[in-house]
Amino acid sequence: VTDESSPIGIVGLGLIGGSIARDLVRLGVEVVVHDRDGALARETHDPVLRRLRFVDAPVEVMRASLVVIAVPVGAAGEVLRALAPAVTDRHVLVDVGSTKRDIIARAHALGIAARFVGCHPLAGDHRSGWAASRQALFTGAPVSICPAPETGTDAVETALAFWRRLGGCVEIETADAHDARMAYASHLPHAASVALALALGAAGVPPGRLGPGGRDVARLAGGSPVLWRDILLANRDSVIPAIRDFEAALRRIRETVESADLERMETVLAGARDWSRG
Amino acid sequence: VTDESSPIGIVGLGLIGGSIARDLVRLGVEVVVHDRDGALARETHDPVLRRLRFVDAPVEVMRASLVVIAVPVGAAGEVLRALAPAVTDRHVLVDVGSTKRDIIARAHALGIAARFVGCHPLAGDHRSGWAASRQALFTGAPVSICPAPETGTDAVETALAFWRRLGGCVEIETADAHDARMAYASHLPHAASVALALALGAAGVPPGRLGPGGRDVARLAGGSPVLWRDILLANRDSVIPAIRDFEAALRRIRETVESADLERMETVLAGARDWSRG
Repeated sequence: VTDESSPIGIVGLGLIGGSIARDLVRLGVEVVVHDRDGALARETHDPVLRRLRFVDAPVEVMRASLVVIAVPVGAAGEVLRALAPAVTDRHVLVDVGSTKRDIIARAHALGIAARFVGCHPLAGDHRSGWAASRQALFTGAPVSICPAPETGTDAVETALAFWRRLGGCVEIETADAHDARMAYASHLPHAASVALALALGAAGVPPGRLGPGGRDVARLAGGSPVLWRDILLANRDSVIPAIRDFEAALRRIRETVESADLERMETVLAGARDWSRG
Repeated sequence: VTDESSPIGIVGLGLIGGSIARDLVRLGVEVVVHDRDGALARETHDPVLRRLRFVDAPVEVMRASLVVIAVPVGAAGEVLRALAPAVTDRHVLVDVGSTKRDIIARAHALGIAARFVGCHPLAGDHRSGWAASRQALFTGAPVSICPAPETGTDAVETALAFWRRLGGCVEIETADAHDARMAYASHLPHAASVALALALGAAGVPPGRLGPGGRDVARLAGGSPVLWRDILLANRDSVIPAIRDFEAALRRIRETVESADLERMETVLAGARDWSRG
């Protein structure tokens, strides 16, 4: 449904949407953008922003046939609702959120599941906004594509070609498999980092007192509270058991420290080290 | 007791001892080294190793008046015992371990607390061994110096000058204060990373499936099981309450996810974000 020269629409010019826009501009693609923050549209000094076609309402991006919804998980449903009336068979909508079950259910409820492809590029960091976006963010990054049973094959192929064009390593999986895996691979590390920040804050240890290792573990706690609120709650059915598993592992470590048993302590730590060696 | 041209002794040529040796060689200081692994002494192709004076027994490093014990926490007590009979008023011994109460108690028991200065440079990463050592590792790194009440003022000043010469930012504190702080700033992040690795391992999620954030949180789990066994057990009186605080923070996060309360979830995450902003 799209060829290499077709314009591409983007809603949301943050870390992910902005990085997509940078790559598309570099590839010579016309990019139609809606961003809630009108200030970016008025920014005339940035050479990349100057080459984007800003539109006032989200639905105006539908002049492109491929549209990327690149807003936080908690806002994506509303954007999908705004675009839904304009969806035709020539359109393909993709998103970039960290959870897939919820947004696919929303597309289904809106009657546009055939033209929507849930996507999740695993790229970026705890920062957000256009200022954090960069070129080639997706080069070599894992990208999950989670088609629903009713998603058109051509729509899936368009999404696949789009991410490959940005350098992503695409994997197709179900939304259930994706969300269950991300609960462990992404949402649990975030919760662990937040818990560390809370414990350190309560103990009066500021971030400046951490060594390089502690800083790495605590880094994710600096992420957007609203973005992560919505991710953790959207995937709560998978996140809760993952946190419980982590609590059990932590209790095992604490009980081992309490036991002061050298051999038992080494076995626990060797288990973690062996995992980290793959 | 030492001037800039005096030789300096090092026991243990791992990440920390090796990095100290690299800087001293660069500064033109004669370095007398004992390393348990005789292979490094026979390594003739490495230009830094070639400039070190290797000795066969730990006690032979005492020909230098300043000696750095740079072996893992669990082995430092034995090295201290081996050096103790040779300690005179012209000697200053320092160590580099992550816990200070235990090694200072050991120096006291050996009757050499007046010439021993417990030190802890907060530098390095989860790797270990000479291969992981590097130049300028201590430039800008926080270094704690924990003198005992009986430690000689001249010994403290020698330790201070030594670390400053390597570029460290020195802070003097009691061993109690240091160990309590490190339980939160270093040992707890390590335990959190190990718990994440164990939980991911049990769930069948390999390290390759993590995004950049998850990789950072899980990175410390790759550390040496023996080194960390000894650190966690040496500091267990402070580590256990720190892990309990972390468990409480984690439980709070899990219960908030269970509540599905948007406002409460955002408040918890904002607390962590505010901490990370200092």
